[in-house]
Amino acid sequence: MNASSAPPRRDGRPPMREALVAAAFHLFLERGYEQTTVDDIVALAGVGRRSFFRYFPSKEDVVFPDHEGCLADMTAFLAASPADAEPVRRVCDAARLVLRMYAENPSFSVQRYRLTKRVPGLRAYELSVVWRYERALAAYLRERLAGRPDGTLRADVIAAAVVAAHNNALRAWLRSDGVGDAAATVDHALGCVQAAFGDSARPATAAAGQGGEAGAVSGTHGDVVVVVARRDAPLWQVVRELETVLGRS
Amino acid sequence: MNASSAPPRRDGRPPMREALVAAAFHLFLERGYEQTTVDDIVALAGVGRRSFFRYFPSKEDVVFPDHEGCLADMTAFLAASPADAEPVRRVCDAARLVLRMYAENPSFSVQRYRLTKRVPGLRAYELSVVWRYERALAAYLRERLAGRPDGTLRADVIAAAVVAAHNNALRAWLRSDGVGDAAATVDHALGCVQAAFGDSARPATAAAGQGGEAGAVSGTHGDVVVVVARRDAPLWQVVRELETVLGRS
Repeated sequence: MNASSAPPRRDGRPPMREALVAAAFHLFLERGYEQTTVDDIVALAGVGRRSFFRYFPSKEDVVFPDHEGCLADMTAFLAASPADAEPVRRVCDAARLVLRMYAENPSFSVQRYRLTKRVPGLRAYELSVVWRYERALAAYLRERLAGRPDGTLRADVIAAAVVAAHNNALRAWLRSDGVGDAAATVDHALGCVQAAFGDSARPATAAAGQGGEAGAVSGTHGDVVVVVARRDAPLWQVVRELETVLGRS
Repeated sequence: MNASSAPPRRDGRPPMREALVAAAFHLFLERGYEQTTVDDIVALAGVGRRSFFRYFPSKEDVVFPDHEGCLADMTAFLAASPADAEPVRRVCDAARLVLRMYAENPSFSVQRYRLTKRVPGLRAYELSVVWRYERALAAYLRERLAGRPDGTLRADVIAAAVVAAHNNALRAWLRSDGVGDAAATVDHALGCVQAAFGDSARPATAAAGQGGEAGAVSGTHGDVVVVVARRDAPLWQVVRELETVLGRS
């Protein structure tokens, strides 16, 4: 078994579980995913079938051994959010937990990416995992934006945008065989989402506190619009003022 | 077979296909999805097994009889886009094709929604369908935004946001048992996405044509920012100017 098929290691993981993942990936790469049975995996790992199913409900689950743990980490991270956390920044930080899992073991992640691309059943499994991450982010955002205009709509859209940005960057990194700085790529992608949504999801009270009363005033003079804003006014407030005067809101 | 389990009708659909969908839904509602076999469906419809599989690769496919056609419509719609179409508006219009399919037959759509919520296999199937819609939108946007900074990233994020907004509105309508104006709900949701991304995805040449040279200039005076813009300057250009002077871009 070569070093590159080693599973990601986390402290406290049972060695038998790790051995099953390693055996499974060795066989998947050697003879193909469909051609490998659970019996083959347990034979190579030197354990019984019941041990396999103690750790993994199905053969598909052994391909994604760390997603359940990562999802639990993400849920706990969001649940522990400070009340005054900027919600879009918080879900971006939560998404970075997924990246960290992939980046912990680049060669394993790249192998899995290639395997998943080839096997339709695994792609379907991956879609359901991604959906669960997205719902976890959306649930937190829905709570934070509750009572605000279009709160659940904005929560769902922001969660989807964060996941899409994260996955765009993650897949670019995986396609490049895990070479390069995955964290920087993901930071850039998430930065774009924060720029689009960051301030607009901020609670109204915090915005008012930063910008003073109106924060920005504007007027038109013929074909020219003039906006005067406090330097520390939130960008969204200035934009809203602009939209109002331009009649485009 | 009551009227509410009638499948959506489209001109040119073979009657046998319609009969199979109607028989399937009658049985799914009467005895449950898992408890219904393809043999049960063909017996009720009065046709042979081979006829079923001529129209549907699997039992799951009969639950979503119109998605393949809708996906083909969407792909054709995007391929026929005028070169100067505003890309975000265009993908929003493409998403409305999906809504139209659901809204054609509210009671059928509501029944399917309830069925899909109860059966994990159908939810997984639905996720893969949604993914294909999202990729169709993203492919068009990637082409339109090619060569622009972060083109593929923006394409993926906008496609995900459009799908999330559409589905947020669609599901609200389905949860309300298909009562109310589905189109208005979806229009509102897509409007939010257009407001967030619409102008920023506009080709630079079109923007320059609208705004003249710079379109907007700005400066700071102590704690105050002053922006002077042409009334017809694109909003994104004014915002970019603002971001530059505020140092937040």
